[in-house]
Amino acid sequence: MDLEFVRSLIEPAQTKIVLMVLDGLGGLPREVRGPTELEAANTPHLDELAAEGICGLHVPVGPGITPGSGPSHLGLFGYDPIEYQVGRGVLAAMGIGFDLQPDDVAARGNFCTVDDEGCVVDRRAGRIDSETNRRLCQVLRDIRLPNVDVFVQTVKEYRLLLVLRGPGLSGDVTDTDPQATGASPLEPQPRSPRAEKTAALVGQFLAEAKKRLADQHPANMVLLRGFAERPDWPRMEQVFGVRAAAIAAYPMYRGLARLIGMTALETGEEPEDEVATLERHWDAFDFFYLHIKKIDSAGEDGDFDRKVRLIEAADTLTPRVRRLDPDVLAVTGDHSTPSMLKSHGWQPVPVLLWSRHVRADPVEEFGERACMAGGLGATLPATHLMPLMLAEAERLKKFGA
Amino acid sequence: MDLEFVRSLIEPAQTKIVLMVLDGLGGLPREVRGPTELEAANTPHLDELAAEGICGLHVPVGPGITPGSGPSHLGLFGYDPIEYQVGRGVLAAMGIGFDLQPDDVAARGNFCTVDDEGCVVDRRAGRIDSETNRRLCQVLRDIRLPNVDVFVQTVKEYRLLLVLRGPGLSGDVTDTDPQATGASPLEPQPRSPRAEKTAALVGQFLAEAKKRLADQHPANMVLLRGFAERPDWPRMEQVFGVRAAAIAAYPMYRGLARLIGMTALETGEEPEDEVATLERHWDAFDFFYLHIKKIDSAGEDGDFDRKVRLIEAADTLTPRVRRLDPDVLAVTGDHSTPSMLKSHGWQPVPVLLWSRHVRADPVEEFGERACMAGGLGATLPATHLMPLMLAEAERLKKFGA
Repeated sequence: MDLEFVRSLIEPAQTKIVLMVLDGLGGLPREVRGPTELEAANTPHLDELAAEGICGLHVPVGPGITPGSGPSHLGLFGYDPIEYQVGRGVLAAMGIGFDLQPDDVAARGNFCTVDDEGCVVDRRAGRIDSETNRRLCQVLRDIRLPNVDVFVQTVKEYRLLLVLRGPGLSGDVTDTDPQATGASPLEPQPRSPRAEKTAALVGQFLAEAKKRLADQHPANMVLLRGFAERPDWPRMEQVFGVRAAAIAAYPMYRGLARLIGMTALETGEEPEDEVATLERHWDAFDFFYLHIKKIDSAGEDGDFDRKVRLIEAADTLTPRVRRLDPDVLAVTGDHSTPSMLKSHGWQPVPVLLWSRHVRADPVEEFGERACMAGGLGATLPATHLMPLMLAEAERLKKFGA
Repeated sequence: MDLEFVRSLIEPAQTKIVLMVLDGLGGLPREVRGPTELEAANTPHLDELAAEGICGLHVPVGPGITPGSGPSHLGLFGYDPIEYQVGRGVLAAMGIGFDLQPDDVAARGNFCTVDDEGCVVDRRAGRIDSETNRRLCQVLRDIRLPNVDVFVQTVKEYRLLLVLRGPGLSGDVTDTDPQATGASPLEPQPRSPRAEKTAALVGQFLAEAKKRLADQHPANMVLLRGFAERPDWPRMEQVFGVRAAAIAAYPMYRGLARLIGMTALETGEEPEDEVATLERHWDAFDFFYLHIKKIDSAGEDGDFDRKVRLIEAADTLTPRVRRLDPDVLAVTGDHSTPSMLKSHGWQPVPVLLWSRHVRADPVEEFGERACMAGGLGATLPATHLMPLMLAEAERLKKFGA
């Protein structure tokens, strides 16, 4: 079902939808036949929602596919993550909260070490610290290019972001990172005629960077990759008819939400702060994306017990969300981050959908195995959640007579 | 899976398939944790079929999509309802049993009131009664156009159907209904060069209609919309290899079935009459679509108890169907019509599939929550039912060696 089809059925309504995303929610048991993190957690409020709602497991991108945070969120927002791909430069910009404009081209960069012949001897410049990085970015930021603004931002350690801003730029430029030591940095090449100007400007930038970094060993050169333009995607208000707000403490998620036209609300670091932000802005939006990050971090760290505790903390916040009286409330994760894997996983993700009229299923508990028997099925494509939320909010009209 | 692929695997057989469609079958509980209409109904014969067969819930068009009766039936017949869309003029023709021909263009019409300047002051002509409508249609029916037959039929109250029949016509004509009062009726415009002739003929018709209705205030003009040709779709016999019969009391369903090449059998008003028709024609067809309408009407009226009783009445008819000894018997609805919503809904629809060789699942009862755990899954695309019925009827050969 494509976005155009859903868009053709949108009708106005006063209803409110909350999508709570517990990042990395899905898990795995620590021992055979043991519980997952979510199953081990004591979650009376989520269980109550599960009992009153309809449950299932969603597949973020496709069977067996482990998603990054960008694709997995886009799926939850109803955008097919295989069709709507974010360039890596754009992802890097979002990751540090850089507010990309439609005329921008972004690339990821590494400081690196080159020898006297100009060959790369260390692609990470001896892993310089962020402080050194910031000092060197200041040096690069002063480079001037004709008719183009240059932004150079520290990401972390040896990593940086380059953004060029001006008319007629294109992200269709090849990487300069040779991906190996012993080779020279590559010349940026246009992959299509429209990128010729951009490739030439990047070449000028790198030539100037080489001069200015010459005495900054080990960080005496820069490698660039993942050139990308800010994508021009349909906004949520256009396709789904909702004024949408993102409540997320981390820059990456705020940036992603802005790409599809959400308003990224100012909020604090903690989940409690985020719920307070939700309460404060309740009247101004129809759709709220509430992102709770640290559950994923516990999974990445392989810390089963901490992941359990953070899920329990999220559970205690749900009554505050319910007291706002949303018409539709969905709780899920963007992907699985089983602490046993210490990384994102491909496993389907528990999802519960509650509304005033929802057809409840027999599931009484919010957990991976309980959700397998739910009415949403054990392999719901993530992109189906958005039209289901809109339907439960009575925001989709009848198709055909 | 497209129709061409299924068609390539069709093989002849003597088997018989019955598809019982209980219109608007799917429902919702009246109170939290209560039963749906189907769950509340006492349905021993359907429960027996469910126990011997395989069950699930089908999704008529897509997640969250509330279907009209046309799209939802096409899905059950194996035709993707997003690909096979019926124009509204054609639907209107089917709704009153007008037998559209391949050369026809149909449009919906309203009698309306225009003032002395020709501006629309009432788009529904004071909601004139059907008797007045019939008299005025008689006046319009006498309008003559060059090389084209004109049909004008009463639908109900202020609504009418216009059909033009002749060579070289096209439905690619814009609406004349301005959709607002205070504006003049719009001139019919061709949306493509092939519709120029048709738009000109419609213009002539309307000019003449205006003259003939001048002294018929409040019904002194006609607005037209939804121009459409009869679609040229593959017939069921071509794609599925079955001689198919439709047994449906309501004209809309008979018309829709004819669009895909079914024979619409003469039948009576009541479900008992329809089953008698089935018995009478048992030898002449391979596939029978048996449509039971009034369950949907009870849902539309918000009458939970009447919907329960009508489901129970349908249940008592199934032994007569089984006595005919079909090879495959499927029972489902075209969509949900929860009496709580008093309208069609997006909720998946219970489906049971019985055959001599079916792999039965553990479901023992025909109801929404029981079917969620069935072998057909909780989110079976409706278009999958047709190939499953054909397979159970041993009408599909092996794919590949």
